[in-house]
Amino acid sequence: MSEEKLTPRNVDFSEWYNQIVMRAEMADYAPVRGCMIVRPYGWALWENIQQALDRRFKDTGHVNAAFPLLIPMSFLEKEKEHVQGFSPELAVVTIGGGEKLEEPLVIRPTSETIIGYMYSKWIKSYRDLPVLINQWGNVVRWELRTRLFLRTLEFYWQEGHTAHATEQEAREETQRMLDVYADFAINEGAVPVIKGVKSQAEKFAGANLSASIEAMMQDTRALQAGTSHFLAQNFAKAFNIQYLDVNNSLQYAWTTSWGLSTRFIGAIIMTHGDDQGLILPPRLAPFQVVIIPIFKTESEAASVKEAVQRVQAALKAAGIRVKVDDRSEVTPGFKFNDWEMRGVPLRVEIGPKDIEKGTVAVARRDKPGKEGKSFLPQAGLPVAVADLLVDIQKSMLERATAFRDSHIFDPKDYAELTEVVQHGWAYSYWCESPECEKKVKEDTKATTRCMPLGGDEGPGKCIVCGQDAQHKVYFAKAY
Amino acid sequence: MSEEKLTPRNVDFSEWYNQIVMRAEMADYAPVRGCMIVRPYGWALWENIQQALDRRFKDTGHVNAAFPLLIPMSFLEKEKEHVQGFSPELAVVTIGGGEKLEEPLVIRPTSETIIGYMYSKWIKSYRDLPVLINQWGNVVRWELRTRLFLRTLEFYWQEGHTAHATEQEAREETQRMLDVYADFAINEGAVPVIKGVKSQAEKFAGANLSASIEAMMQDTRALQAGTSHFLAQNFAKAFNIQYLDVNNSLQYAWTTSWGLSTRFIGAIIMTHGDDQGLILPPRLAPFQVVIIPIFKTESEAASVKEAVQRVQAALKAAGIRVKVDDRSEVTPGFKFNDWEMRGVPLRVEIGPKDIEKGTVAVARRDKPGKEGKSFLPQAGLPVAVADLLVDIQKSMLERATAFRDSHIFDPKDYAELTEVVQHGWAYSYWCESPECEKKVKEDTKATTRCMPLGGDEGPGKCIVCGQDAQHKVYFAKAY
Repeated sequence: MSEEKLTPRNVDFSEWYNQIVMRAEMADYAPVRGCMIVRPYGWALWENIQQALDRRFKDTGHVNAAFPLLIPMSFLEKEKEHVQGFSPELAVVTIGGGEKLEEPLVIRPTSETIIGYMYSKWIKSYRDLPVLINQWGNVVRWELRTRLFLRTLEFYWQEGHTAHATEQEAREETQRMLDVYADFAINEGAVPVIKGVKSQAEKFAGANLSASIEAMMQDTRALQAGTSHFLAQNFAKAFNIQYLDVNNSLQYAWTTSWGLSTRFIGAIIMTHGDDQGLILPPRLAPFQVVIIPIFKTESEAASVKEAVQRVQAALKAAGIRVKVDDRSEVTPGFKFNDWEMRGVPLRVEIGPKDIEKGTVAVARRDKPGKEGKSFLPQAGLPVAVADLLVDIQKSMLERATAFRDSHIFDPKDYAELTEVVQHGWAYSYWCESPECEKKVKEDTKATTRCMPLGGDEGPGKCIVCGQDAQHKVYFAKAY
Repeated sequence: MSEEKLTPRNVDFSEWYNQIVMRAEMADYAPVRGCMIVRPYGWALWENIQQALDRRFKDTGHVNAAFPLLIPMSFLEKEKEHVQGFSPELAVVTIGGGEKLEEPLVIRPTSETIIGYMYSKWIKSYRDLPVLINQWGNVVRWELRTRLFLRTLEFYWQEGHTAHATEQEAREETQRMLDVYADFAINEGAVPVIKGVKSQAEKFAGANLSASIEAMMQDTRALQAGTSHFLAQNFAKAFNIQYLDVNNSLQYAWTTSWGLSTRFIGAIIMTHGDDQGLILPPRLAPFQVVIIPIFKTESEAASVKEAVQRVQAALKAAGIRVKVDDRSEVTPGFKFNDWEMRGVPLRVEIGPKDIEKGTVAVARRDKPGKEGKSFLPQAGLPVAVADLLVDIQKSMLERATAFRDSHIFDPKDYAELTEVVQHGWAYSYWCESPECEKKVKEDTKATTRCMPLGGDEGPGKCIVCGQDAQHKVYFAKAY
């Protein structure tokens, strides 16, 4: 933990991000190029993300399992688009136990193929469907440009893989999990994501339809924060996932897959952080409250420590995740900076004057300066703190939503579109032709992010070519 | 799920084990030789094992993190014993992103090296110590003979890695985590393990001292169910993990590592299972109770289903993990067999007569036949069921302990030792010489399992060579 100031966001957003990740001890660079270590503070955040998602997966009928890390190279080749999409990114094991392998094995970049192979063995009858399995694990994609959490060779994620008897069920599942992701992002992460369908150019290799949740970072770039894919019968046909229906006739299953990764930690950092460091949403923060004891003399120390222990116990008993920073080798000021860097939502200070008055001083991380400071009575503190945490969560979502909404533009023509995507997103009609999408990308580096379906915008004219368009799409530069 | 009977344990224990794993849908073979799929029912058991251990790790001050899967080959070579131990078992990545790598990367067989490298970067001062980190993850060891859960190319585990300022602290940590494992195995798994120190021949490659918990399976073979290693300064010197002590003088840290894997699932199966299938300890069972509705007519169905829902809700509200088997395509008898195979500790049957009487019929999995059956009033059922689950857990531990104790022998001479290790363990004085250990292994295939230190057995004579011996050791054939 350095006491140096962070590079401000408006000076160099990318440098600001890297500094936060390192100084808040979220992650570190591994000795292998492009790999990361997720440090305990970052992993504690990921564990809270996992719990919040896993609860939602189980509530929607899913179970967890574990499929192998190593996949025969030939499996990837069974689905044409899939192998084209992933083969440039593979890590390949060619030696095992000192001997050259007959068939090279790839480290899974994603598990549709190996899971498809197993589903073809497990699924025999319509009674075996649906299969609703999720896996928490690691995958490897040999990326060239890497950044901690955002794009690394190895990353951590969950990947859901489901098989259904009918197209409609599989489409409903795709939508259901997209909704689960959005609910999680908005209500746990305070990240106001937008749901929609990806273009053909941006979809998952092997999917018929990919949907995503898209978040706006504070530099106005988009970050794809979770994806849900309708795979139709593509993998069922490649891996022969067939079942006997009620009429005893053989049918291919319909499958989906959906994933959310440690990338979401990057989304949290870049949605909420400020020039003092991280700001973590209370529902996911490893520590929701940090208590800093303040004293000078020995006699002050005794009474302060007693109060600190009492307050800590009361907060913990109320289910609040609380940390006491009782380090003796650093000053309270150093501790304030340290925990601001780490984004703990609420700081509680207890000093001799608080003992006298029966109060504590609290400081909200989301509102720096006087605005976020107040004194609270020690009596009834857990309820007051719980209320404050709810309010912080709400304020963070409101602020991020206001930021996002004030940076989404409705450009009147193509010239204006090319201008607004430099400092925001354009929400414009698009004819869905790959040529128009490509032109925007070449002219501005902005890509189509997603088309929110079911909106009521009605038909219009493509902002690029002027032809008829059924839907609006978000154009934005993206991570 | 097949209705065929299991091969009985006394006919072919190994075949019995394989059949249980497959028919209870715990795991399946992967298309890559020696790899496994942990199926949802097996993974749910592993999740409960994880929670029970993770709680204990956190209670003893540890935090979780994630280190990379891929390790530069050169790292392993920095610790001489370590590379000798692991190099025959490595999976090696030689191609990444379509290009041959300059330095091959190994998939971690264990993470002492990469974690040691990072600790050398993070640890600067005595104030940074101790570092108490655990990792949940997957590792790969290229084994030749594999069996589901017991020995597979890829397996799942946790590996703790700690660094300390002093030898004593590191030795205490080694013992603390051994105690944590034993507490977990005995009180959560109902597996009565024995704690002790491994011989030099059986210790971890790179450790000064390895301790283990050893369990006896029903074929009387030993299964090493968890290990805790005192690594002295071996890895600290190999990776330069140094800190400035209070006197500002540079010191090497002392490190430990400890691990427990999905192998423990094999220990549970082979400790408790019977010829009808699995028997799971209530504290770890994915479902503690299965409810089977029993009815013939439509009018019976309505009242039975209502009662089933009510009982399910009451048990769930009491924190009991309960499953209702409401399949219509199979008979109650089929369901009984199915859930016996899966080892659910308690079966609750609700039929028309139970509705009349306000009762349910319960059947304990650990006591087949009449002995385990009783009727309980629906009123107050959650408390009665919770009590029964506690009793089942206790009975399972008692039975396994009695089995173990009746198969540990104190042979009077070497000839008797070679005989008893064919159907049990020998607990005998051993002079700690590798020659005597080797002779036993060559003559009987039994190895030294562990020496329980701190016992009061006093000195004696080695059962092999008759020389002075300070400790007794367990000799047994092992998995």
